[in-house]
Amino acid sequence: SVNPDLASERQTASFSVEKLTALLDGGAEQTRIRRAVVEAIESDPVFSRENQYFQTQNERYETAVRKAVHLQKKMHEMGWTENGPEYKYIYRALSGDVAFLLHRIFMRSISVLGSDKQIAKWIPLATQHRLIGSYAQTELGHGTYLQGLETTAVFDTATQEFILNTPKISAMKWWPGDMGRSATHTVVFAQLYVHGKCYGIHPFIVQIRSLRDHSLCPGITAGDIGPKMNFEHIDNGYLLLKNVRIPRENMLSKFCEVQPDGTYVRHGSQKINYFTMTTVRISLISDEVLTPLMKACTIAIRYSVVRRQSKLKPGEQEAKILDYQTQQEKLLPQLAAAYAFHFINDYLQELFNRGYREIQRKNFDMLPELHALSSGFKAVITQHCTAGVEICLRACGGHGYSLLSGLPSLYTKILASCIYEGENTILLLQTARFLIKCFMAASAGQPVPPSVTYLAAVKHGKCPAKNKLDFLSPDIYTEAYQHVAVRLTSSTAAKVQDLIKSGVKKHDAWNQCTVQLVQAAKAHCHYIAVKNFAETVEKLEAKAGIQKIMKHLCDLFALHGIFSNTGAFLHDGYISAAQMDMVTASYLDLLAVIRKDAVPLVDAFDFTDKSLNSALGSYDGQVYQRLYEWAQKSPTNQMSPAYERYLKPLLHNALSKL
Amino acid sequence: SVNPDLASERQTASFSVEKLTALLDGGAEQTRIRRAVVEAIESDPVFSRENQYFQTQNERYETAVRKAVHLQKKMHEMGWTENGPEYKYIYRALSGDVAFLLHRIFMRSISVLGSDKQIAKWIPLATQHRLIGSYAQTELGHGTYLQGLETTAVFDTATQEFILNTPKISAMKWWPGDMGRSATHTVVFAQLYVHGKCYGIHPFIVQIRSLRDHSLCPGITAGDIGPKMNFEHIDNGYLLLKNVRIPRENMLSKFCEVQPDGTYVRHGSQKINYFTMTTVRISLISDEVLTPLMKACTIAIRYSVVRRQSKLKPGEQEAKILDYQTQQEKLLPQLAAAYAFHFINDYLQELFNRGYREIQRKNFDMLPELHALSSGFKAVITQHCTAGVEICLRACGGHGYSLLSGLPSLYTKILASCIYEGENTILLLQTARFLIKCFMAASAGQPVPPSVTYLAAVKHGKCPAKNKLDFLSPDIYTEAYQHVAVRLTSSTAAKVQDLIKSGVKKHDAWNQCTVQLVQAAKAHCHYIAVKNFAETVEKLEAKAGIQKIMKHLCDLFALHGIFSNTGAFLHDGYISAAQMDMVTASYLDLLAVIRKDAVPLVDAFDFTDKSLNSALGSYDGQVYQRLYEWAQKSPTNQMSPAYERYLKPLLHNALSKL
Repeated sequence: SVNPDLASERQTASFSVEKLTALLDGGAEQTRIRRAVVEAIESDPVFSRENQYFQTQNERYETAVRKAVHLQKKMHEMGWTENGPEYKYIYRALSGDVAFLLHRIFMRSISVLGSDKQIAKWIPLATQHRLIGSYAQTELGHGTYLQGLETTAVFDTATQEFILNTPKISAMKWWPGDMGRSATHTVVFAQLYVHGKCYGIHPFIVQIRSLRDHSLCPGITAGDIGPKMNFEHIDNGYLLLKNVRIPRENMLSKFCEVQPDGTYVRHGSQKINYFTMTTVRISLISDEVLTPLMKACTIAIRYSVVRRQSKLKPGEQEAKILDYQTQQEKLLPQLAAAYAFHFINDYLQELFNRGYREIQRKNFDMLPELHALSSGFKAVITQHCTAGVEICLRACGGHGYSLLSGLPSLYTKILASCIYEGENTILLLQTARFLIKCFMAASAGQPVPPSVTYLAAVKHGKCPAKNKLDFLSPDIYTEAYQHVAVRLTSSTAAKVQDLIKSGVKKHDAWNQCTVQLVQAAKAHCHYIAVKNFAETVEKLEAKAGIQKIMKHLCDLFALHGIFSNTGAFLHDGYISAAQMDMVTASYLDLLAVIRKDAVPLVDAFDFTDKSLNSALGSYDGQVYQRLYEWAQKSPTNQMSPAYERYLKPLLHNALSKL
Repeated sequence: SVNPDLASERQTASFSVEKLTALLDGGAEQTRIRRAVVEAIESDPVFSRENQYFQTQNERYETAVRKAVHLQKKMHEMGWTENGPEYKYIYRALSGDVAFLLHRIFMRSISVLGSDKQIAKWIPLATQHRLIGSYAQTELGHGTYLQGLETTAVFDTATQEFILNTPKISAMKWWPGDMGRSATHTVVFAQLYVHGKCYGIHPFIVQIRSLRDHSLCPGITAGDIGPKMNFEHIDNGYLLLKNVRIPRENMLSKFCEVQPDGTYVRHGSQKINYFTMTTVRISLISDEVLTPLMKACTIAIRYSVVRRQSKLKPGEQEAKILDYQTQQEKLLPQLAAAYAFHFINDYLQELFNRGYREIQRKNFDMLPELHALSSGFKAVITQHCTAGVEICLRACGGHGYSLLSGLPSLYTKILASCIYEGENTILLLQTARFLIKCFMAASAGQPVPPSVTYLAAVKHGKCPAKNKLDFLSPDIYTEAYQHVAVRLTSSTAAKVQDLIKSGVKKHDAWNQCTVQLVQAAKAHCHYIAVKNFAETVEKLEAKAGIQKIMKHLCDLFALHGIFSNTGAFLHDGYISAAQMDMVTASYLDLLAVIRKDAVPLVDAFDFTDKSLNSALGSYDGQVYQRLYEWAQKSPTNQMSPAYERYLKPLLHNALSKL
């Protein structure tokens, strides 16, 4: 039975939830396929996540390995293939709780960096799981700065081998997933030396564990790096190499090769390789970042309509906490952001598909823009969504703090996305570098890529809004975002130039502007996200019922951004103080409007109870019952030796006194 | 041996670390006592926290109970008493990792709410640990709104007993610490019914476990609520009562009593009781909030001078990451906040001591102001410090994400402080209610408490700063903060009034302004924090060496607040755009200045390596060595059954192919 406080929210939906779900999936057929995958995975007890919050790191790892092995069988049974339409739903259905994800990266790096001969040798073995691969790039001492990696690979002409070494502790490989306990092979990135000369970082296939008994190979020291904030199911590992010899053929040689006599040869262009790094940043957005935020919104919003606390009106029943303006102001902007980023993800995917087609035609012109967009949006979306999940967690009070709410795990996992695949500050500075370059070019009348042409058209006008309703016009707010992005880019570009003119060295000048450069990069991405949301809403004309609520969310996303960052818009008077009061009024009005559809809007994300794995977010809203039943199963409710050992001696002789 | 990159930071300190430590401790003698306690605790292996990051929730609980029992012995051995000068350092030295903290709350509630007879009976038993107490207030369905608690206590005149019941699932007690597995007794808050009439919430002493064998008493169902984001060492519990009978004497009756015939009698004033709730909020700031932020700053800043990554200047050595402006901008404002809040904590403690003296003289005039300040500062400081710890964690990149850095545990623990002892949004609205009331009174020419007299003096001037150095003048920035606090309070008061005048009901009008009321309350606290820091610096005249660096930190704290919230200052033009650029310039300049003393400034917090329990923050800065050695001890490096069970069958027959 559904909690009546939740049921009543669904009766008044202003739109068809099913139609919105289909829109998010990219069509009703996709929804059907997704649900079939979810059904198959969730009905299989091996994939259950019910005990997850009770398990130790060791238990989590073992479960993840078991699932990964079982998944192979399942895929075969179900007729699912890696190229089939079901594939992209499998990971989501498993909530990522599976081992051997690095095995895919191992395969991808061989496919991209290996010669045809290497691909022919290794890919079939990997596909059949006759080995388990990993990817060993990051070291204890180096993550961001790849050129600084310290592992060495010295070519020995006599034996036609590379000799790999970890020359000092900071050179130890650290973090590679699946490497701590599972992998038999890994791709090691090392400084290549031939005849004493260093040729920089290159990739080498290295076997690290015996295929016979899984013992470590000679010269290899490897293990697990220990407990982390999340990812208990992954055996992130360390690796020390001591005079490990591998055949010459194990250096991945699509782009560079060491010939038998030690001659170093470069082949073709590596640009496609940079493109791969760029697409990884985009591909993680959906599964690793948007899904967790959508789950967190679902949990927090459903909970906020079944939790009643205190009274809004004296003498009445206690109010649903979502009826408090402060609760709306916490949760509804996160909901709007989840939609905004879903649509920008569609936009980026499309752009990258186009980029890929161009690159295959040997046209690399789009690369700088794609790199800037993927860096900037990876940073902005991971940051925004991580903050959003945290807000959802806190908005559920004490119950949000229980692991059984599902929110702590969502938070501790999404947090990592701000760090991996490029630390966010570094990425934003890459976007900023592109922006400054394009701004200078545009100012000099040179052509620039499409996403930054707006930088050329610096307008010095004022916002034309006359009343609070004007701020519900996408033209008005999109223009405001554009104005801020241009202002921050141009003023920071000017600051860099002024510093250099005043005699400050170029690198120092850059460093002295980085705080502001980061702001400019964020403003650029925020502008594009708002603009894209507005354009998406416009295209929904045919879907009248959905268009209206999406328009509200778009307005909320835009106005929340202004409300939370008023200074950027007030600074040069583009928006006046009186107009800012209108923004605030419109923004607060919108909260009350969207609140009415809040539950249908999260229902449309279409998460099953099993995938939420939350005592607070279930579809039926029987929150308290579920918390109680679940808590009783906790291992902390088993007998503890603490009483006999410590409490009994302490509580001596108390009876007589009572 | 100390990492030379860390050692060099200490050689250039602009002040005496030892003198600053003494200042923070409140005198060199206090430093001496604190260090003696730390030495005694840390040299005792029972109190070791080294394995903490490897332990399960059950192991954490058992260790905490063991420590609590051992602590009794230790205190006796050392001659430490609960009233002695050492007491306040014990909890800090244990990093809070000990059981039976609720036992103290149990005792305090009896002391405050119990009759002399009840105190005489229970306090000696509790002091001698002949029982273990807890405090059962929060229920599954009610936390914030105490009037809504649903547990019932019905007086039975025939047997002179109260009959306690949990009438429905939401009425179950939920969260009380030490109750899930340890406590034998607890203070239960329940709705009192006599002859069918409800008299509201009252406290009752209830025995829940046998003193003979620790089994649950008749009618009691209790257990552990399961895994949480942190506090694994505490057995937060649930409690169901079914017709549990307790003698009439077990209702704590200092303020209210049920006489044998069922007559309900009130005694004296309960105001002192409200004061107790208020002091709890202040007392948690130091141990639960400031210490974690100070530890996080210590870890992140020490790490940031031994971590080198990428090059600032081409051709040179890789740079310490603290030399990047973006890293300074993450960490140094947190350091400044730690000092700012340390000093505001001193201010609040002093104010509360004065309040306590007044209250003992039956003068309750200070209560509303103390309530507003304790609520507001509890919220603002917990929020700010939680965000600060998260920033420190992220600023350490991947290594910050390892539990071995110490940062994840600091974060997951401090986060709870935003929720317990009053949810922050609720608390800020209480402060706001006080502000609005005082603003109206002040506007009508009535007297108001000292901390809000400034609300009466609404000035409409502009900020007089003429260049960036002017913004290093405490008068200039304190005035700006004051201006914003007055503006937000007065404009929100006006909005509430306008809504009511336009016909909106009072409670609706209030709800529609709560987002802005929260902003006003924050601005008020921020203003007082800045003003207090500036005044503290001024009083350091005699300590010239320390005064200078404290002045820098005060400036940074103030300017960071403006820089992060420019809109509030720009809104009505109090600070102009040109002046805001000066603020930015001064702020960024300050980062480079304070960066030079960053390590000495965290050294002054005087944390031992054992208390930090961090691979990144050790005094010697041997970061990589420590991470590696520690990781090797992780239980995840023991043999796993996963190979035999899952991997071996998968990796069949691979050998022949390689």
